[in-house]
Amino acid sequence: MYRPDALNRRSGYRYQQLEQWLWEGIQTQRWRPGERLPSIRALCESTGCSRATVQHALHRLEARGVLEARPRSGYFVCLLSGSEPPVHTEPELDTPRPATTSDLFRDLMQRSAAFDLLPEASSEPLSPGLVGLGRSIARALRRSTTQLHDHYDAPAGDLGLRTELARLYARRGWPARAEAFCITQGCQHALSLALQACCEPGDLVAVESPGFYGTLQLLEQLGLKVIEVPSHSRYGLDVEQLAHTLARWPVKACVFSAAFSTPAGGCLPDQARQRLLALAGAHDLALIEDDIYAETAFVQPPDPLKALDTEDRVILCSSFSKALSRDLRLGWIAGGRWHDRIVQLKLVTQLASSRFVQQGVAHFIADGGLATHLRRQRQQLRQQRDQLIQQLRDWPVPVRMSMPEGGLALWVELESGQDCLALYQKALAEGIVVTPGPLFSTSNGFRHCLRISFAHPWNEARRAALRDLSGLCCGG
Amino acid sequence: MYRPDALNRRSGYRYQQLEQWLWEGIQTQRWRPGERLPSIRALCESTGCSRATVQHALHRLEARGVLEARPRSGYFVCLLSGSEPPVHTEPELDTPRPATTSDLFRDLMQRSAAFDLLPEASSEPLSPGLVGLGRSIARALRRSTTQLHDHYDAPAGDLGLRTELARLYARRGWPARAEAFCITQGCQHALSLALQACCEPGDLVAVESPGFYGTLQLLEQLGLKVIEVPSHSRYGLDVEQLAHTLARWPVKACVFSAAFSTPAGGCLPDQARQRLLALAGAHDLALIEDDIYAETAFVQPPDPLKALDTEDRVILCSSFSKALSRDLRLGWIAGGRWHDRIVQLKLVTQLASSRFVQQGVAHFIADGGLATHLRRQRQQLRQQRDQLIQQLRDWPVPVRMSMPEGGLALWVELESGQDCLALYQKALAEGIVVTPGPLFSTSNGFRHCLRISFAHPWNEARRAALRDLSGLCCGG
Repeated sequence: MYRPDALNRRSGYRYQQLEQWLWEGIQTQRWRPGERLPSIRALCESTGCSRATVQHALHRLEARGVLEARPRSGYFVCLLSGSEPPVHTEPELDTPRPATTSDLFRDLMQRSAAFDLLPEASSEPLSPGLVGLGRSIARALRRSTTQLHDHYDAPAGDLGLRTELARLYARRGWPARAEAFCITQGCQHALSLALQACCEPGDLVAVESPGFYGTLQLLEQLGLKVIEVPSHSRYGLDVEQLAHTLARWPVKACVFSAAFSTPAGGCLPDQARQRLLALAGAHDLALIEDDIYAETAFVQPPDPLKALDTEDRVILCSSFSKALSRDLRLGWIAGGRWHDRIVQLKLVTQLASSRFVQQGVAHFIADGGLATHLRRQRQQLRQQRDQLIQQLRDWPVPVRMSMPEGGLALWVELESGQDCLALYQKALAEGIVVTPGPLFSTSNGFRHCLRISFAHPWNEARRAALRDLSGLCCGG
Repeated sequence: MYRPDALNRRSGYRYQQLEQWLWEGIQTQRWRPGERLPSIRALCESTGCSRATVQHALHRLEARGVLEARPRSGYFVCLLSGSEPPVHTEPELDTPRPATTSDLFRDLMQRSAAFDLLPEASSEPLSPGLVGLGRSIARALRRSTTQLHDHYDAPAGDLGLRTELARLYARRGWPARAEAFCITQGCQHALSLALQACCEPGDLVAVESPGFYGTLQLLEQLGLKVIEVPSHSRYGLDVEQLAHTLARWPVKACVFSAAFSTPAGGCLPDQARQRLLALAGAHDLALIEDDIYAETAFVQPPDPLKALDTEDRVILCSSFSKALSRDLRLGWIAGGRWHDRIVQLKLVTQLASSRFVQQGVAHFIADGGLATHLRRQRQQLRQQRDQLIQQLRDWPVPVRMSMPEGGLALWVELESGQDCLALYQKALAEGIVVTPGPLFSTSNGFRHCLRISFAHPWNEARRAALRDLSGLCCGG
């Protein structure tokens, strides 16, 4: 069963090699969902690893929600989709095109941004984290001075908040300085500043496919051309495919996520990261990293690509909207070599951000409120993801789905005849919001795909909505 | 002394006619600063008005800070600049040019936005209005729900706040619907959306000269061309001059203020308003109305031009930054025929605004907090303006100045040899911030002019700073 060469060829620590090998075994159905893994002793013997190494790897897979430890029975494979996650390469993608999107697209963008299957049914009590956040902002308001109300904030934002951001990123492998950040009105605003800073109208921008619809809208707004590069639901952006694209077309910038790219949900492996940076250097590319989902990681947020950026060509964009609150309207951008231009763009288009909100959030982070909130939320998100998977496996139609280790949604592939745009309309009539696949590309592809959120607790109303949705699939 | 025809030709109520006639008499030095006006009886006799009418007009002029009532002595002309306010028409203005601005310009923009002569010395206690505002926002935070934190606000903004805005404008002659407004991140953001909605890169935009530097920066950012039209320190935009410009050049939009245009401080008279709207109709012009200073009016905020806009071609832009708090980062835009496009632009570039802030401000307005705050602030601003005028009249160098009935600053003209850019640099070295004239034009003109703020109380430190400034003028 054990192929020593397979393990030895891998990079990283021994326990990481073993973890990856086991993970692949599960993905390729060597061990099926619900099945028991070989015992620790058997694994030690077959792999030549020490007991400690095997246990370490098993613990990590358990923490990732891949394995479940049952007392006195051993490790079992958890809920997993029974097949490889969908990867789409549409041949006609590899051509530049103007980024144009329809009115329907705009309508969808607004509805889908809430990540709620049942927008009308949300009535959960405020989480302790959000109560604490509110208190922190109220305190900042009480402590505010005439000075604060009479003057605008510095264009780059409150130094206290930027310092906390630097600390957060230091824990993720990037020893950032506070001065590297500029506070924005959210991640969409950050992406908008990033694209304006490194592109001129008419320039060509590479994006993931499927990829974030907000980026496609921005490209259209800014008069930029787009070329789509496939994105894998486990490994993210297909960097080799990007290399082909760069060889053929004069691409100016690439927008991607290294962590839980939406909608496919993949994370860039180490090797792809190095290759991406090398390509960017060779082709003088700006790398716009959308980091917004990193802190939703069920286990450990992946490091940002920015951590490896020795040439200052990664523009990191993120916000608190996915991991904390969409209503803060606080994001940030670390613009590398484009930092000054970005701050200037922000100054000219909206002067400043709100300091009392920034100071309230900075105190909330410094007091440990954010860390506590994220810990609680991660457990909850993983549970909600598992519940969604369980429900989708009971659907009366064949369903393939991604298996993200973070983020807020599954990428779901129905049979090729299914029309998810029609499904979207039918569901909407019932008050149910899904995000149809075509929203994530300018190619009109992904018609049989949809994104389904697990951002909210599966109360009875949402469970019923999901059942209704499956009924609509059958009817369609 | 009284010319009946002059009074009879005027529109409005009798007391308004009389008020205007007296005001003009003061402006034309028929009655000089410090001089006593004719008695009420004498005015009744010479004008044929009733005692009640004369008293009404005198009370209004007293309320405007033009007259001062001394017990048992009569009405005296208050502090006024002894001469006509400066009006600049630079012949070379009337040519389109690319809107380019220097790095110095950018530096100035940030410093000058605070409107404080002495940014380091601000230590006034929080005003009761701002304390109330803070409480209102904190209450909105406490009442916030999971729903609020999990979902983005509607792109056009919170309906409660938009309803309050509609009520505010109804009191200023414009019976607006809440749906006419889109909430923005401030007035600069509103102006940015307005220009993007009605112009394409390369289009020509008319602005006031001197005019708001933020607009000039935006035009550069958006790749627009600019043409400057003189702005009068009493009557605002020179609409007849604009007519000449429109006859010669393909102007697409005009940015102006009908109320206390910065820096000159003028307000558009009724006749000019009608003419401006007629010109806009004839030349298919978008009128971008910057309404940000209206609520700083010492007496009554002038109606917006938007109130007369039957063709939906006025885009009204404003925010709470001048009249309430710069740290709210809340503005609004009423985009007329461009409304949908503006909401779409906002959605794509930053999704949404913060609802708890909007709801807090909406409650603050509904509870009467804003009205109370504005009443108190108006008195204070008028007093601070008068104190600034008094101090400037004692300067050892000749000074001419505007006499605005609102706004936050005086427009000051020194002798033509003075170099206010050099003065700015010298003052900055002392920690004193003035805004040099060249910032308000792309022509490099207005070099002997500067804007001096009266937004903050004249404590001893600011008085000393102003004395130091006059010393620097002498030295220059």
